[in-house]
Amino acid sequence: MSNVKTLPLLEPIVEPCCPPLNERPLTAEEAEPAAKMFKALGDPVRLRLFSAVASHEGGEACVCDISDVGVSQPTVSHHLKKLKEAGLLTSERRGTWVYYRVEPAVLAAMGALLTKASGA
Amino acid sequence: MSNVKTLPLLEPIVEPCCPPLNERPLTAEEAEPAAKMFKALGDPVRLRLFSAVASHEGGEACVCDISDVGVSQPTVSHHLKKLKEAGLLTSERRGTWVYYRVEPAVLAAMGALLTKASGA
Repeated sequence: MSNVKTLPLLEPIVEPCCPPLNERPLTAEEAEPAAKMFKALGDPVRLRLFSAVASHEGGEACVCDISDVGVSQPTVSHHLKKLKEAGLLTSERRGTWVYYRVEPAVLAAMGALLTKASGA
Repeated sequence: MSNVKTLPLLEPIVEPCCPPLNERPLTAEEAEPAAKMFKALGDPVRLRLFSAVASHEGGEACVCDISDVGVSQPTVSHHLKKLKEAGLLTSERRGTWVYYRVEPAVLAAMGALLTKASGA
């Protein structure tokens, strides 16, 4: 059961912030939102749920779609909310369910922070 | 005071593990080491220290080089040890100081996890 209707483009909640990590030391102001995003992915269950949303049909999912990681539905909801608060997911309520979608711009910025720092 | 001698190539402590996050849901085994690395960067002070090492001359630094983030030297050492345990830094003792270096292969793999997932 999935809904592939495209979500409207939403402004990222947390704007990507920083130069590549090897360009110069981050300032305290830059490090705060970036660390928040890394922290959100720093829990194995949350990372699996994030991956489940990202790889789901249409790039979005509701709790009803991703209940197979071995935790209860309230726990799934809790983790998705944390990911949203960190700016990694956006959400939209449709009827009974809230649908979550990965925020590609934020992910790309986080990726660039790391890949450029690695020289790759 | 810095030492630009090149460190020997070391095997990454934690091997990059996973396909891009939007390819398929990560398994529990894949999520464990990846989450550990994200968690290590999920603290603002630790992220700043990591960035300070990555951007330091020669891509490496000792505690003596990066004491300007407003925390004590033992705290700096503690955070660098955590980053090393997560596989993000390697270290080598030279005389009085331990020199830390960013592990580019691991960073590149983490970056790929995110940038490929974002479609960037």
